[in-house]
Amino acid sequence: MSTYPDTSAQELENTLAAAQGAAREFSALRPRERAAAVRAAADALDAAADELVPVAREESHLPEPRLRGELARTTFQLRLFAELVEDGGYLRASLDTADPEWPPGARPDLRRMMIPLGPVVVFGASNFPFAFSVAGGDTAAALAAGCPVIVKAHPGHPELSTRTARIVAGALAEAGAPKGVFSLIHGEEAGRLAVQDPRVKAGAFTGSLAGGRALGDLAASRPEPIPFYAEMESLNPVFVTERAAAERGDEVAEGYAGSYTMGAGQFCTKPGLLFVPEGSGIEEAVAERVRGLASAQLLNDRVMGGYDSGLERLSGHDAVRTVVPGGTGEAGERSPALLATTVDEVLRHGEELMAECFGPASLLVTYTDEAQLVAAARALRGQLTATVQGTPAEAGEGAVRELLDELRDRAGRVLWNSWPTGVAVTHAMHHGGPYPATSVPLHTSVGTAAIERFMRPVTYQAMPDELLPEALRDANPLGVPRSVNGGAPDRDA
Amino acid sequence: MSTYPDTSAQELENTLAAAQGAAREFSALRPRERAAAVRAAADALDAAADELVPVAREESHLPEPRLRGELARTTFQLRLFAELVEDGGYLRASLDTADPEWPPGARPDLRRMMIPLGPVVVFGASNFPFAFSVAGGDTAAALAAGCPVIVKAHPGHPELSTRTARIVAGALAEAGAPKGVFSLIHGEEAGRLAVQDPRVKAGAFTGSLAGGRALGDLAASRPEPIPFYAEMESLNPVFVTERAAAERGDEVAEGYAGSYTMGAGQFCTKPGLLFVPEGSGIEEAVAERVRGLASAQLLNDRVMGGYDSGLERLSGHDAVRTVVPGGTGEAGERSPALLATTVDEVLRHGEELMAECFGPASLLVTYTDEAQLVAAARALRGQLTATVQGTPAEAGEGAVRELLDELRDRAGRVLWNSWPTGVAVTHAMHHGGPYPATSVPLHTSVGTAAIERFMRPVTYQAMPDELLPEALRDANPLGVPRSVNGGAPDRDA
Repeated sequence: MSTYPDTSAQELENTLAAAQGAAREFSALRPRERAAAVRAAADALDAAADELVPVAREESHLPEPRLRGELARTTFQLRLFAELVEDGGYLRASLDTADPEWPPGARPDLRRMMIPLGPVVVFGASNFPFAFSVAGGDTAAALAAGCPVIVKAHPGHPELSTRTARIVAGALAEAGAPKGVFSLIHGEEAGRLAVQDPRVKAGAFTGSLAGGRALGDLAASRPEPIPFYAEMESLNPVFVTERAAAERGDEVAEGYAGSYTMGAGQFCTKPGLLFVPEGSGIEEAVAERVRGLASAQLLNDRVMGGYDSGLERLSGHDAVRTVVPGGTGEAGERSPALLATTVDEVLRHGEELMAECFGPASLLVTYTDEAQLVAAARALRGQLTATVQGTPAEAGEGAVRELLDELRDRAGRVLWNSWPTGVAVTHAMHHGGPYPATSVPLHTSVGTAAIERFMRPVTYQAMPDELLPEALRDANPLGVPRSVNGGAPDRDA
Repeated sequence: MSTYPDTSAQELENTLAAAQGAAREFSALRPRERAAAVRAAADALDAAADELVPVAREESHLPEPRLRGELARTTFQLRLFAELVEDGGYLRASLDTADPEWPPGARPDLRRMMIPLGPVVVFGASNFPFAFSVAGGDTAAALAAGCPVIVKAHPGHPELSTRTARIVAGALAEAGAPKGVFSLIHGEEAGRLAVQDPRVKAGAFTGSLAGGRALGDLAASRPEPIPFYAEMESLNPVFVTERAAAERGDEVAEGYAGSYTMGAGQFCTKPGLLFVPEGSGIEEAVAERVRGLASAQLLNDRVMGGYDSGLERLSGHDAVRTVVPGGTGEAGERSPALLATTVDEVLRHGEELMAECFGPASLLVTYTDEAQLVAAARALRGQLTATVQGTPAEAGEGAVRELLDELRDRAGRVLWNSWPTGVAVTHAMHHGGPYPATSVPLHTSVGTAAIERFMRPVTYQAMPDELLPEALRDANPLGVPRSVNGGAPDRDA
């Protein structure tokens, strides 16, 4: 991890003042203008790929094809949010016509839309140096919402963060966004101070439970508490039914091995728990595949240290067998590890065995009776994802449904015969879930709905047409979809 | 205030266990069933009006016509939420079809909908013993969302709370809702314990800033923090332009006097600050009307004590003149008070002069230059409402627009030539606002959007049709509006 000077108190003050100063003007940009600014950032990042990818490679140790793909995902994401802004549906415009007969009393003319919350602090993550960092999903959503953004750089890739921020800030300015609408700060203390500053109106974070909780607690304890959206810890359990194990155990083993070792296990959706029938042979099949996989350098020293101690804690537990020990290469790379235990032990030692181990390790859990799966599901804390590997015949039966009900109550995304890694940036995605997967289970940090985190409603009552925001005027000059008297949204005037 | 036994630890445990036990079954009711249960509660309350209103009258000192109207509002509200459940739009169903060409990587079949959070604790308010209490807006929204509700009774109307709860619980049970889906607890300690219980997944509150903040802090400091929606303190300022004062000063004076003394000033939307041009004569006109108004008993001793000390604090302030002193009647009634100061003093002593005084008192603030209004607006904390009294000619001019922009940034509802008291229960209403008006500015506690506070998204990935909730199945058997691939919601299969 390279060192980089922390943002000074004076620099932070300038940054916060500039963000606040830009808020009104940025929120007042017309949709096409704001969309153009966000697209300009995407274009500039794409154009700078050959500059940025090598820096990302050096700072994150991630392979080049992955980083090029991730940058493409990042700019696609920015452009998808630009489309959303132009569409206008995210404003959730709702109009009630005046109605003297409305029970239980006359109803005035009421018109509601979403407006930006104000300056947002985004904490970049280390594991996606593009897609969940400086110009990642939180930034894209907040800018699209019309909020100035202050990114706190992740110390794992300070140089990439600085270069990315320079490109984004330049592109936004050139596209006509006000000065101060985007900036970067360095250092933990600057991040903490920003979360506590009265000019900041929301925070977003992707990272560890300890880090997210500490910052969320600061946000909640302010004189004016602010929403703090932290995406933190998830085991992403996978449950394999007896029949699925019998019919396609090999396919499951291959899929699982690929999913938990993808990106060296450094995904928030990495499956860390695999429930399989005892004696199904899946353990051996996963182990065989994992042994054949290349080792990889982890993101940075902090991640490596956390992984090593997590793996040591798990593998040293009396109830855990080491199936594939993992190992350390000459340049410090880590090769994947596979551990095993039984469902009874998981239920007995839940807190110790069901804790996230970020990196290429996973715990295989054997069961002897499918009924144990429901009990295991009930012992889970909040998860980003939960997966069932079953068979078509089982889909019509009660047992799987019961398991799915338990998983739905604990997870943000429930999968069938697929793998949780790879989170599509789209409309119906939900990347969230009950605590500790996230700090606020109502929201997603991936997909278009992520914009809702940074907006609040305001209703205008009996306002003359010329004083209304354009989106709420009689003639609907922006053509945004609007719900009238509770009906389905449409774009008519 | 009558005394009533606090809920014991064992009773609370039974209540919480029953709520948790009912959650799954209640959330699984089909829309028509849940709507029928909510409607049954409304019908039963209407049928019990002659039993409930006299109890409410005795416990709250509010006049009978007001209470009958409030009960009608309450049952209307329940029925409106029942309609919402049947409509299905509140599920915000969103479907992405599988798309191997989706950039930057193949997209699986993803289907998202809202599901209930789980048991909710609702803290009843004193000032609307029906509409914001046991069967009020928070309860209606949470039940409609599919969440079991535990109401913490307000000590100001324990007997009414008990009777209301008995009727609601009975009607819900008779309509087929599971046992434990609705219950009532008494006592501050029981309320605090409920907010901290791991089985409770959200809280809602209407009342004082001190009370809401203390409970919100408990909710935020749990091992698993939960959303806590508190509606607390608001001054609901009204700004009268020079021209409005000149053209219709009398009308403004009459409207203002009526609005701030309505219900003896015991509304969360009571306007507590009136900005008028110096020498406009509005002060005298308001005073004249207020002197002619009857006195009224306040809700209870606690409210009376708070009002007396708030009024004493304000009227005793060096910068404040007493225009109408208010007074105390033989039976302890309070007659309305009017105080006055200047905008310079408000800017100088913001914290002392801009604090809510719940009850029939208001502070009139004179200005000499309209530019002072923008400065005053900038000094405001978060508000439920902010109002401008202007003239049609001004609507086309810049000065009013600048003032409205400042107010929009600080309030949840912005009004023109109307009065903030009287909050319509409808689709486009927003009853919320930045802190300290509420604890979470993203949400409303009145109107159909209030249901969103008690739901979270879940996305199903590649799930067989028969394992999906009905709302997400291919054939759309419930006919709910669904957005497909980000398009406008429609009810087609």
